[in-house]
Amino acid sequence: MNLRDLAAALGAELTGSSGEEEVLGITGLGNAAAGHVAYVEGEARLGQAEAGPALALIAPLALRESAKPLLRVRNARLAYARALSLLGPAGGRLPPGVHPTAQVGADVVSENGAAVGAYAVIGDGARIGRGAQIHPLVAVGRGVVVGEESVIYPNVTLYDGVQLGARVIVHSGSVIGSDGFGYAQDGERHVKIPHVGTVIIEDDVEIGANVSIDRGTTGATVIGQGTKIDNLVQVAHNVKVGRNCILAGQVGISGSVTLGDGVMLAGQAGIADHTNVGEGARGAARAGIMSDVPAGTVVMGMPARPRGEQLRIDAAARGLPDLVRQVRELTRRVAELEKRLSDSSD
Amino acid sequence: MNLRDLAAALGAELTGSSGEEEVLGITGLGNAAAGHVAYVEGEARLGQAEAGPALALIAPLALRESAKPLLRVRNARLAYARALSLLGPAGGRLPPGVHPTAQVGADVVSENGAAVGAYAVIGDGARIGRGAQIHPLVAVGRGVVVGEESVIYPNVTLYDGVQLGARVIVHSGSVIGSDGFGYAQDGERHVKIPHVGTVIIEDDVEIGANVSIDRGTTGATVIGQGTKIDNLVQVAHNVKVGRNCILAGQVGISGSVTLGDGVMLAGQAGIADHTNVGEGARGAARAGIMSDVPAGTVVMGMPARPRGEQLRIDAAARGLPDLVRQVRELTRRVAELEKRLSDSSD
Amino acid sequence: MNLRDLAAALGAELTGSSGEEEVLGITGLGNAAAGHVAYVEGEARLGQAEAGPALALIAPLALRESAKPLLRVRNARLAYARALSLLGPAGGRLPPGVHPTAQVGADVVSENGAAVGAYAVIGDGARIGRGAQIHPLVAVGRGVVVGEESVIYPNVTLYDGVQLGARVIVHSGSVIGSDGFGYAQDGERHVKIPHVGTVIIEDDVEIGANVSIDRGTTGATVIGQGTKIDNLVQVAHNVKVGRNCILAGQVGISGSVTLGDGVMLAGQAGIADHTNVGEGARGAARAGIMSDVPAGTVVMGMPARPRGEQLRIDAAARGLPDLVRQVRELTRRVAELEKRLSDSSD
Repeated sequence: MNLRDLAAALGAELTGSSGEEEVLGITGLGNAAAGHVAYVEGEARLGQAEAGPALALIAPLALRESAKPLLRVRNARLAYARALSLLGPAGGRLPPGVHPTAQVGADVVSENGAAVGAYAVIGDGARIGRGAQIHPLVAVGRGVVVGEESVIYPNVTLYDGVQLGARVIVHSGSVIGSDGFGYAQDGERHVKIPHVGTVIIEDDVEIGANVSIDRGTTGATVIGQGTKIDNLVQVAHNVKVGRNCILAGQVGISGSVTLGDGVMLAGQAGIADHTNVGEGARGAARAGIMSDVPAGTVVMGMPARPRGEQLRIDAAARGLPDLVRQVRELTRRVAELEKRLSDSSD
Repeated sequence: MNLRDLAAALGAELTGSSGEEEVLGITGLGNAAAGHVAYVEGEARLGQAEAGPALALIAPLALRESAKPLLRVRNARLAYARALSLLGPAGGRLPPGVHPTAQVGADVVSENGAAVGAYAVIGDGARIGRGAQIHPLVAVGRGVVVGEESVIYPNVTLYDGVQLGARVIVHSGSVIGSDGFGYAQDGERHVKIPHVGTVIIEDDVEIGANVSIDRGTTGATVIGQGTKIDNLVQVAHNVKVGRNCILAGQVGISGSVTLGDGVMLAGQAGIADHTNVGEGARGAARAGIMSDVPAGTVVMGMPARPRGEQLRIDAAARGLPDLVRQVRELTRRVAELEKRLSDSSD
Repeated sequence: MNLRDLAAALGAELTGSSGEEEVLGITGLGNAAAGHVAYVEGEARLGQAEAGPALALIAPLALRESAKPLLRVRNARLAYARALSLLGPAGGRLPPGVHPTAQVGADVVSENGAAVGAYAVIGDGARIGRGAQIHPLVAVGRGVVVGEESVIYPNVTLYDGVQLGARVIVHSGSVIGSDGFGYAQDGERHVKIPHVGTVIIEDDVEIGANVSIDRGTTGATVIGQGTKIDNLVQVAHNVKVGRNCILAGQVGISGSVTLGDGVMLAGQAGIADHTNVGEGARGAARAGIMSDVPAGTVVMGMPARPRGEQLRIDAAARGLPDLVRQVRELTRRVAELEKRLSDSSD
């Protein structure tokens, strides 16, 4: 593929080159290499990009001039994603079919083009959709549904009955459908509440490594369509995550929480049980959401508050040692005034 | 089973029905369905319960009247747990015996009714108790003991020598017995301290998904009888957790910490190494316990303080921007007073 | 081995014994036992050590006198590590060779003395170094390199192409090389950015249980030589961790962060993306590092600040409720002064 072909594939305007050069690959700015096309987010990094060895740059429309050939597009990050899909090394796709060492239970339906890897264990009645890939050493419980073109990486566990939509990606070590953390108190003993619900993962969800998503006590824990979940995230029983949400690394979501569509939670944020977070709301890194958050609100801090309020508190906290000194000084001055007034009235 | 049978099994008083109706299942309030018995915690949710399709309600004694038939019991949550055990779908019990693909080492004892799933790997000298279930793809080290009726879900790793009591449940992805995080400093190098201790999990413990429990450096890391551990919890080397404790999701416990019986730690709480937390103490969500906590105390915040103290600090922090304004205004007024007094004394 | 042999092996000065006694084992102070040599960190715990059953004590030079025989060395903790290596129970080394049930792809090179356990799955073109041990149920992707004498515990996943140096240890449940968490926004949709980079783990790194280390978007995520990573740590795409760093349990490191050599992060600390932490800097437990940290600085709090500054803020925060009272009282006194002055000027 040459530059002109790439520009056409990305719907990009090519400047500074007639486009004959062969494209050897696509890279981020920090890994630019000769013959490769690099992605530059904007003006601020252009100097670095031009000083590097890249053949050409994928850039936003706002970037008009450069010493390097530009592939200018409205959404440069999206074009970068597409270029990597076109020209990145091919992912590790499994050959279609069931590996002879896979243990496949009774009444399992494995649709056309589905792949099941070595030592995967598929429970009775499971259904593996068209083109789905179950990597080696995956445990798929009874009655599980894996939708078409989904990819389940090694050492994942899908408990009995969980349902995954189409194009779902689950990275290694993740566990979907373990029992929720619910007990009844009987004196000092904690008596297990059986968890007979399930988990529903809708289409186009990606789940990182070592994530835990518990099944509902009754009913389902639901991850909405297009939501992306980073590594080491905890999603408790009966949580409802909306569509196109972003849950960053190590986020923790307690039982029966509801997140509206488009909610974004930054790393290590946490949400107390039975809390509702409205559509499009955002939690900053380490936000501790202890009560409902209205749609569109950005919260931060622990307990989480609207961003502006928390920033004012943080600023005041930085000034606290100074405030203590001011109050001490004021106290001295007031005592002095009281003394002078008392003296003068004598 | 009809309503009357269920009431009898739960020791519940049935009101509002002669009890002939067949019970199709048990649900939480949010998933109530026709023919099903739903659980209602109390008065506050009764309206919702009555408006729904449930056949009848499991309710506490305090709830006396309802448009729906009631199964009234002293401990309604406990009755709900029992009802789910009676009427929930049967869990995924493995057939007894060792799957032909399981790799079983020398001198392994597998007691009556024990089940070992496909591609499980059992080390030399391990002992699998009566009725215990080792799910597929579990790694059981040498000399490990798994007590009777314990359940080890897929993709769990039990390192050499760890001991699990009776009726222990370990969810997928959890790791028990990995080396503790201990090094000796040799100049800039960190030299590994071999971890030759073990882990002892007492009876009736439940461990969530993707939990890590390290072995002792020497001696044992111990999880006391009846303790329940949620997903993604870290328990470091030589920790002693008492009986009937509750460790919620993503809690982190550093090395050589001791927790008394009945300690409860809410989500994302953390404890510094060598700290002692007394019997029945509680840590709120995200509490950062940096020093010993007396028995029965509730702590919150980072660093964690007694709850009342932390709440007063939080309230004052909310008022901080206002306090800053008050001090600025006072400073102005005091300067004005000083000026007036100075003018008048001229 | 007798005491004299042990002293010689550790380069220790033996006092209080002629050294004929046989050493049955090595223990920490909390697990001292008859015939065993215990490790005592210093004066403060000497009483406990002497009251116990230990045969002798490994102790620092500063400890000069004791009722027990002493093995005195400059670096007692290092001697303890070495003694445990000499006398601890032998670790669970796998027999060399490839287990007949392991699935080994095409063109895999397994060097002399390497061991591959039951049901391990090794992708095409992987290279397993001399004496390396791949435990059962490990998934090794295509083209992966595992250096000599490295140990990969059960249920680990190494994605395609990741490279591990010599003497690397990876504990169970850890995932190395999963896709980074990067998406391009297309309206409300999050479009996956393919992650075509890799992960490089340098020599002598140890990685705990259930750790997640993502591959670079392009280029590599790098863990520097001699760095030690505790359980449940998140390392995002394109992070560069320096040499001899310490990342304690549940630490989270966002994308494109750089850590200099010798950085230490205590439990549950987190770092925002694209942040640089200088050589030898330290983050306290739960530090939330949101901006660059100069070399050698110790930071704490959220957002993290230099330690002294944060301690002053914390102290002021503890006094906040009292400060509020002081301001209220000052306000009363100032009003009183104003009234008196106003009265007197009438």
